[in-house]
Amino acid sequence: MISIIECIGMLAGMLTTFSFLPQVIKIWHTRNVSSISLLMYSLFSFGVFLWLLYGISISSLSMIIFNGITLCLSLSILYLKIVIEAGPKAQGNS
Amino acid sequence: MISIIECIGMLAGMLTTFSFLPQVIKIWHTRNVSSISLLMYSLFSFGVFLWLLYGISISSLSMIIFNGITLCLSLSILYLKIVIEAGPKAQGNS
Repeated sequence: MISIIECIGMLAGMLTTFSFLPQVIKIWHTRNVSSISLLMYSLFSFGVFLWLLYGISISSLSMIIFNGITLCLSLSILYLKIVIEAGPKAQGNS
Repeated sequence: MISIIECIGMLAGMLTTFSFLPQVIKIWHTRNVSSISLLMYSLFSFGVFLWLLYGISISSLSMIIFNGITLCLSLSILYLKIVIEAGPKAQGNS
């Protein structure tokens, strides 16, 4: 039986992973990335990539899944930040 | 001796924790929060709070420290988002 502590950990993992989805959707719809920090998503994506390597190293399936999804979402934000600011309708500072 | 795997985990934790600092600094300087997702930082902060509870439950000092710092930074972004958008110089949608 899964303990209450493990349930808290599972819920925490789902929340911190899927919380990036509303940010991706917001940028996708508004094409506004002016207040998004390029440095934050660069460091964060590299950090999550290392968590993914760590998860693979210790054979933790939940770490691999959660960090794999988070990395996809984080790289999507980073990609949109770079592409939108490089485009003709760039909206501000980086 | 600390293994290379634990070094990767430590670096990953530092990167994903302190990556939020450039976002706080960017918002603080520009007062622009127009592309920051309120829903993302609400869900993320709650998720990190649960990771903190999890860390306390399993007595993991590194989880308590990293998630404590991440929670402070995430709540700072959430606070700035709400305060700046509620202020007289609000710059866009929420």
